[in-house]
Amino acid sequence: MDSPATTLPLWLDLTAIAIGAITAAMVAEQFRDKKLDWLGVVIIGITVGLGGGIIRDLLLGIRPVSMETEWFLFTAGAAALGGMLLQRVLRRMDGLVSVLDAAALGFFCAVGTLKAMNFELPILPTLLVGTVTAAGGGVVRDMLLGMPVGILFVGSLYAIAATAGSAAFVLADYLGVSQIIGIVICVAVTFAVRMASVWFGLSLPEQIALRM
Amino acid sequence: MDSPATTLPLWLDLTAIAIGAITAAMVAEQFRDKKLDWLGVVIIGITVGLGGGIIRDLLLGIRPVSMETEWFLFTAGAAALGGMLLQRVLRRMDGLVSVLDAAALGFFCAVGTLKAMNFELPILPTLLVGTVTAAGGGVVRDMLLGMPVGILFVGSLYAIAATAGSAAFVLADYLGVSQIIGIVICVAVTFAVRMASVWFGLSLPEQIALRM
Amino acid sequence: MDSPATTLPLWLDLTAIAIGAITAAMVAEQFRDKKLDWLGVVIIGITVGLGGGIIRDLLLGIRPVSMETEWFLFTAGAAALGGMLLQRVLRRMDGLVSVLDAAALGFFCAVGTLKAMNFELPILPTLLVGTVTAAGGGVVRDMLLGMPVGILFVGSLYAIAATAGSAAFVLADYLGVSQIIGIVICVAVTFAVRMASVWFGLSLPEQIALRM
Repeated sequence: MDSPATTLPLWLDLTAIAIGAITAAMVAEQFRDKKLDWLGVVIIGITVGLGGGIIRDLLLGIRPVSMETEWFLFTAGAAALGGMLLQRVLRRMDGLVSVLDAAALGFFCAVGTLKAMNFELPILPTLLVGTVTAAGGGVVRDMLLGMPVGILFVGSLYAIAATAGSAAFVLADYLGVSQIIGIVICVAVTFAVRMASVWFGLSLPEQIALRM
Repeated sequence: MDSPATTLPLWLDLTAIAIGAITAAMVAEQFRDKKLDWLGVVIIGITVGLGGGIIRDLLLGIRPVSMETEWFLFTAGAAALGGMLLQRVLRRMDGLVSVLDAAALGFFCAVGTLKAMNFELPILPTLLVGTVTAAGGGVVRDMLLGMPVGILFVGSLYAIAATAGSAAFVLADYLGVSQIIGIVICVAVTFAVRMASVWFGLSLPEQIALRM
Repeated sequence: MDSPATTLPLWLDLTAIAIGAITAAMVAEQFRDKKLDWLGVVIIGITVGLGGGIIRDLLLGIRPVSMETEWFLFTAGAAALGGMLLQRVLRRMDGLVSVLDAAALGFFCAVGTLKAMNFELPILPTLLVGTVTAAGGGVVRDMLLGMPVGILFVGSLYAIAATAGSAAFVLADYLGVSQIIGIVICVAVTFAVRMASVWFGLSLPEQIALRM
């Protein structure tokens, strides 16, 4: 098969996985007083790095791609251990980590959206699959650690950034833009919306009820 | 294919999904002090409306049906937003919401049981699939919101209502009753058991240990 | 098909499931003050007895085997109820329960690893599938009950025992050892590592960060 989905460079996917796993290890570090062990950090890293893609593939009805090669698990596990060991350095460059994390979010989203489009899903399921690929790993991480699930609450623009990026990709595809350009648009929109939350403090409104 | 599973009117399925999503939004409303945002309400609504069906289809080894059409996601998302905006009205008709919710539980259960029977699963897996279709979305909702998982604890007759309805359907099928009548029986039994909890305060006994 | 996976005696699998469900019921008993009902205990038992295998089969992209026969659900449900009723007796033989539980962990791990090898997965995914088959049910149990997820934290050697057993099986297979011997090695290594935690208090080190 020579579809764009299969010719995406593997290193891009692995970079996103690595960044996800590293940031997961940094979140896990906050659980020091609860005595998370080394394996716990690796499990959290694998969850964030591969969890979104696994949920995506289950929604598509196929075997998760991370089961087909050594690279996905190796990258996520090694990055989580690296993130654990190097977290003092990483914390000093907190701004850089946020930027990389937003880029990884965008790339996960592009991979998921592209895969859903290649499976010819309708539009709304495509947006869901794109969003879940990007944000699903973090949801499972929060649940594993017993933390409030971040994307539900005011403040992060995490899931909505992925939904916006996915929608931009679908729109671009509908307008006849090439898939490579669509990927770039998806990553850019996801990145921009996510960083609008980090840099300018933008957030979605709290839930409201109409008076009547 | 002209099996009964495919000729069930779509609006019945969508009605159950909409009711599930509306009640989910009303549960989510209790998290006001935790600042659930609009997207969070939609995510919870989609989880309750579509989650049970997604778990059902994973247990059956197929792609979740909610990925095949726009209608399922659209209905769940719109109903969740509607439920959020209109919750003051909905709370005033709390009794009606309970009745509709029990009916939706029964219909989810019937759809799940019927699908499992059409896949020729054995009896106990069929009951599990029926129960999970009806109650699974609420379990994931509780876990996402960090609440105690309702069906585990004394008080609701939620899961057992679905198991009873599913068993009644399987028994009716075994006795040669037509599937349409079986669906009606399933919904009626599920509804009756669930409302016995709401109206008469019936519940399952707490766990016990034999003395010896 | 006459592969070893299909000729493993069913009673071994069912024994592991039963032990898993019994220990799950004993964990659930600690939630007495939260009023877990009978059905709640059965749900927790089914989760621990069948959950790991269900996640394994989803990762392999196939319908969960527990949906194909009555025996898996019947065994898990009956064992959970038995464990609930007989827990006073079981607590008196706490040492025996630990030993049986470690054996069940090893057998689950062997079944999962063997199945992954029969599906010709790469090495790291095979280890993940073996580990998840053994430890996955307990993770879902902890999440359902709102408890800290045990395998993440210092103290249990639960997941790492399964990973070690799975690795020993894969190594044995690579060296040309027959699958039956490989299964014995897998169970022995998993059992030994797990009991090293129970008997000698061994545990993995807490997460650390390099100073620099």
